[in-house]
Amino acid sequence: MANSKYDYVRNFENPHHLLLNTYIILRLDGRCFTKFAESHDFRKPNDPRAIHLMNASASATMRTILDIAIAFGESDEFSFLLPRECALFDRREEKLITTVVSTFTGWYVFLWPQYFAGGVGGEGEQPLLTPPCFDCRATCYPLAENVRHYFSWRQVDTHINNLNNTTFWTLVLKGGLGRQEAADELRKTSSADKNEILFSQFGINYNNEPAMYRKGSVWKERQREEEQETTAVPKLKSKTQRKKEEKRARKAKIVIEHVDIIGDEF
Amino acid sequence: MANSKYDYVRNFENPHHLLLNTYIILRLDGRCFTKFAESHDFRKPNDPRAIHLMNASASATMRTILDIAIAFGESDEFSFLLPRECALFDRREEKLITTVVSTFTGWYVFLWPQYFAGGVGGEGEQPLLTPPCFDCRATCYPLAENVRHYFSWRQVDTHINNLNNTTFWTLVLKGGLGRQEAADELRKTSSADKNEILFSQFGINYNNEPAMYRKGSVWKERQREEEQETTAVPKLKSKTQRKKEEKRARKAKIVIEHVDIIGDEF
Amino acid sequence: MANSKYDYVRNFENPHHLLLNTYIILRLDGRCFTKFAESHDFRKPNDPRAIHLMNASASATMRTILDIAIAFGESDEFSFLLPRECALFDRREEKLITTVVSTFTGWYVFLWPQYFAGGVGGEGEQPLLTPPCFDCRATCYPLAENVRHYFSWRQVDTHINNLNNTTFWTLVLKGGLGRQEAADELRKTSSADKNEILFSQFGINYNNEPAMYRKGSVWKERQREEEQETTAVPKLKSKTQRKKEEKRARKAKIVIEHVDIIGDEF
Amino acid sequence: MANSKYDYVRNFENPHHLLLNTYIILRLDGRCFTKFAESHDFRKPNDPRAIHLMNASASATMRTILDIAIAFGESDEFSFLLPRECALFDRREEKLITTVVSTFTGWYVFLWPQYFAGGVGGEGEQPLLTPPCFDCRATCYPLAENVRHYFSWRQVDTHINNLNNTTFWTLVLKGGLGRQEAADELRKTSSADKNEILFSQFGINYNNEPAMYRKGSVWKERQREEEQETTAVPKLKSKTQRKKEEKRARKAKIVIEHVDIIGDEF
Repeated sequence: MANSKYDYVRNFENPHHLLLNTYIILRLDGRCFTKFAESHDFRKPNDPRAIHLMNASASATMRTILDIAIAFGESDEFSFLLPRECALFDRREEKLITTVVSTFTGWYVFLWPQYFAGGVGGEGEQPLLTPPCFDCRATCYPLAENVRHYFSWRQVDTHINNLNNTTFWTLVLKGGLGRQEAADELRKTSSADKNEILFSQFGINYNNEPAMYRKGSVWKERQREEEQETTAVPKLKSKTQRKKEEKRARKAKIVIEHVDIIGDEF
Repeated sequence: MANSKYDYVRNFENPHHLLLNTYIILRLDGRCFTKFAESHDFRKPNDPRAIHLMNASASATMRTILDIAIAFGESDEFSFLLPRECALFDRREEKLITTVVSTFTGWYVFLWPQYFAGGVGGEGEQPLLTPPCFDCRATCYPLAENVRHYFSWRQVDTHINNLNNTTFWTLVLKGGLGRQEAADELRKTSSADKNEILFSQFGINYNNEPAMYRKGSVWKERQREEEQETTAVPKLKSKTQRKKEEKRARKAKIVIEHVDIIGDEF
Repeated sequence: MANSKYDYVRNFENPHHLLLNTYIILRLDGRCFTKFAESHDFRKPNDPRAIHLMNASASATMRTILDIAIAFGESDEFSFLLPRECALFDRREEKLITTVVSTFTGWYVFLWPQYFAGGVGGEGEQPLLTPPCFDCRATCYPLAENVRHYFSWRQVDTHINNLNNTTFWTLVLKGGLGRQEAADELRKTSSADKNEILFSQFGINYNNEPAMYRKGSVWKERQREEEQETTAVPKLKSKTQRKKEEKRARKAKIVIEHVDIIGDEF
Repeated sequence: MANSKYDYVRNFENPHHLLLNTYIILRLDGRCFTKFAESHDFRKPNDPRAIHLMNASASATMRTILDIAIAFGESDEFSFLLPRECALFDRREEKLITTVVSTFTGWYVFLWPQYFAGGVGGEGEQPLLTPPCFDCRATCYPLAENVRHYFSWRQVDTHINNLNNTTFWTLVLKGGLGRQEAADELRKTSSADKNEILFSQFGINYNNEPAMYRKGSVWKERQREEEQETTAVPKLKSKTQRKKEEKRARKAKIVIEHVDIIGDEF
């Protein structure tokens, strides 16, 4: 509004615009979540309440920030894809990452009581003792193939981590090993070895574990058209067009899946 | 952990490190807060519950992120100062801004029931209907004087906005004007004019309004030494030293003030 | 080599890496070239010596920096295309732009006497009085189509500028108009108008003007394969492979053309 | 001028502005200069013609780009200091570094014949066979002390390299050692050892070697005021003021010195 002689300090701001016509992936990640999980008594190796809360927060974030096309989550992280024609906040990096991480965190705390109320499966209520913190980064990818590889990268990570965690906690909780012993046992074992330990010692077929843990969770709009034909020219849409799209997006049904991304034209 | 052929996508990440030996100010700002304030029935022109909640969230953020030296807030924004020797997250911009905004948002939602429980001053309980969202930006300042000017800039802004809001809402709530009429009345009035309207028409001496609204809120550690002598060489501290400092910071008393920053070596 | 207590200043360096898997275009542009052209008595509207010197400098730059795939020049500017898999200098922006602009400037000054020696067409020798200066910028483009549009953009510019210059100087040199009169005459004329002026007043068919002026100059390797199939994964080449390619590149025949780029899969 | 449908490609440009109110140092560095020096038969360990040409190119660069306050050079590198209030090219990084490196390279090639004409000291003429190439980077420093440390860093480097080179080439040229033998001899020797080798074996007192080689070369304006009092607010100068300053700068006497920077308020 009014000008003062101090206004010059605003000129030190240095916003960074993400390259046009590239896909943007925003990945948020829990900070010190091992500690957070312990102090809130998360079940091991996977706490369905925690995963469902992450999924619900991601879904609410997609309803708040309508540009997000696809989200993929596992454990304490979530990745959000913005399409290449996205013009939200003029593609200013700091606006994009802080808005997404703030929205997600707000929903996580807001929805906590809904998922940790207890009652289900004999669990007692687990109140939130202290809010969690997530960080977030933006990465640009020029090609659809890079984006597919990105999600494959996260899903391979999901698989490796979950197989490891499952085996570790089975050794501890069912096998009676100490944490250090279990860690020693797993050092240098291959994926095949871990599958074998689960099966021969505990009768667990890893492939029968819930897909949500093994494959992570994908959110996408049911009606969103297939990948539009790639166009080089960032399209400028009329206001009416954008309003119409927004209205559509607001009503769109967002669905969750736990499916294979890898090698897939998903 | 393990490597897959998709790992290459990580190389597209492009973190940005903020210039060494400069002060860093992180400013967060509420998004669409007019709407948020209305749907949560905030009192006009200032809702003490909302301001106290902002202040409490800032204080909790400072206890969580110990590097923050000073915080200044007004309305729906807060600025956090990191000292020039700050090495948090290796000064990676996206880590700094997302961690601060996520921490702040988490505390805001977490502490809401404490400040909007009702009972005080005849207010009823106001439940949180939907979480708020904040964005955040980082700006570097090379000199202590720039930092003082920055806070003066925000405080001048506080003053101008609050005088304007106070006069506007007094015209509406006590003077019986419609919003449009009040806005028309204030168009092109100077600060002196507004003071005069408040005093002659409503017997309000603006300078007697609470300092918290007129001057904003400053948080700082009581014991933090005066601005250390400026040293050009970013100091590398031993682990013991840092542990000791962290311990001190954790116990430090953070105090709030509503004072003049402008022209001050505060 | 040795370490001194001043070495810390190196940590203030903040190199910027250009996004992987995108095309890089480096465009250099003469600074204050109107003045430079006048003081060196360049022929109007086009001086073949100056254009040939630009083309020769670009060709020499391509032989020095073997990663360059295509170059396009007009007037006092040249654009160089680096392919999406380019890993030169680890894609550090400042290394790329300064190396290209320094190489080009060096060759321009070095080759000057060869092109301004006089003797051809009755021209006298024109010694270089002071070296020219070029600036350079890098821009990333995600898709091949963007790159084609980039070159089309420059070629449209070439056409518009050259038609305008040709008409302006014809009015001045053959029509006897003053510069201001000629400028006034051309204000608000369309391309069709300019063609008409040239033809009806001076019997000049613009389309018969040399293609080098009308279309600019394209340099490319004669043998370079057609645009390889796009691959998302930046290829890591073995040392032998790169040595082989370098050897091939060093021997490759670079050819010049003055052709249409626009709308072309050139 | 005119608009075409291809103009959108310009929006992919992403200029980077250097932080306000910081000192900017532009350092340029010869590329593959060992090879360049050999093919042009540079004298060892120091060729006065080459050093004088570097110094003359730097001086000419300062006369062309009037914002430069101080320059320091050694061997095949030169650093240029821009003052904290510098607003040249709106502090756009790529404009600054490419303009400086292009100007310097142009002058180097242009002035070559003047310094390598032969005749002095029995040297024959050495024609330039191929133009050299320099790269350039920009670094920001917040405090004057950082800038002094920067120049000290370069001068320490000058000292270490020159003592090493002097000893190495003395062993080769006067001591009759092969290059490998000389390198082996010097491995793990301290500065004191090298001084001792020079003195005891060859009667050379290193401190009597020319200061230009031992300390590098500093260019500065004779009349430039002492470091102005630091002001936080980037000053906006009137056009008249800037014209006046420019005129002064154009006439300013730039002087060269070979002095100690380290520990000095030079």
